[in-house]
Amino acid sequence: MNSTMLNGKQIAFLFTDGVEQSELLEPLKAVKAAGGAAMLISPQAHEIQMMQHDDKGDKIHAEVAAADADAADFDGLVIPGGVANPDRLRGDPASVRFVRSFFQREKPVGVICHGPWMLAEADVVRGRTVTSWPSLRTDLENAGATWVDQEVCVDGPLVTSRKPDDLPAFCAEIVEKFADGAVGGPSAQR
Amino acid sequence: MNSTMLNGKQIAFLFTDGVEQSELLEPLKAVKAAGGAAMLISPQAHEIQMMQHDDKGDKIHAEVAAADADAADFDGLVIPGGVANPDRLRGDPASVRFVRSFFQREKPVGVICHGPWMLAEADVVRGRTVTSWPSLRTDLENAGATWVDQEVCVDGPLVTSRKPDDLPAFCAEIVEKFADGAVGGPSAQR
Repeated sequence: MNSTMLNGKQIAFLFTDGVEQSELLEPLKAVKAAGGAAMLISPQAHEIQMMQHDDKGDKIHAEVAAADADAADFDGLVIPGGVANPDRLRGDPASVRFVRSFFQREKPVGVICHGPWMLAEADVVRGRTVTSWPSLRTDLENAGATWVDQEVCVDGPLVTSRKPDDLPAFCAEIVEKFADGAVGGPSAQR
Repeated sequence: MNSTMLNGKQIAFLFTDGVEQSELLEPLKAVKAAGGAAMLISPQAHEIQMMQHDDKGDKIHAEVAAADADAADFDGLVIPGGVANPDRLRGDPASVRFVRSFFQREKPVGVICHGPWMLAEADVVRGRTVTSWPSLRTDLENAGATWVDQEVCVDGPLVTSRKPDDLPAFCAEIVEKFADGAVGGPSAQR
């Protein structure tokens, strides 16, 4: 990873209240360190309460509502975990459509921990191999995925990891994927 | 409901840290008010941190580990919600087996809010009609259930509800079911 790998790239971070603080802030730091720009997106633009496991963490401002965001404007998407975060996100149809749109465009998506519930909700894991926090295994298998237990799992444009301990491997992999761009190459991205 | 409906009946409550306080304590109060006895069961016997929505609530002592509990000894089961509670419970194989055993014996089971994730984990909703907190809809449908949006849903021995607001209807219904006993009648219960 170097400081210009993501020059000119815009990465979307989708999350809401209950997001695991490290799983949002470390990928955000990695994207910025690689020269990328980031946009923080939530069902509504507002102050978001992050969590540090079972305790409340810091707050962070989500700048854009999912209904106002368009996957066409981004080069990649990150969905962090925190058990309550995807549990709330999946109830927002605009957030679910936003996620699905990245898959329709074959743009790279990185999802960690409890985040993959959003992939089940968007019905984009059928036939894919993924990992996640272990409690999601049955839900992801029932959604048509093959589930594996490894620190980082790559299936085409989709990168998944299990937990905060996996963040170094996850961050390195998503920066690579975002640098590579959409499966169809740069011309397929916009 | 009267104070002798559940005389001689023993009801299991299965939960762990993150359980929604009202969804544990109100059914517990209803069972006791109807003359029933209750046993509090968790993956390990220990002090459990209850939640009141996003804030920590009181603590309660779980008396028995799921691995030491046998559905044969109970006349019914309650699984409360709280997003983190079933997310943790489903990772405990003894808890999952305990839940499945009630269904194998056709004994009455009441599950509310996020609790139905345990039903997906135990693979006991295939062909059944259930309700739940709305975020679980896709996971329950993918597990083979028909999902409905109503305050209380009864399908054979299974009673499900959506949220704390549904507790009055949920508590009345589970007490009725526990009084009626297993589908096969009293002789099928032990």
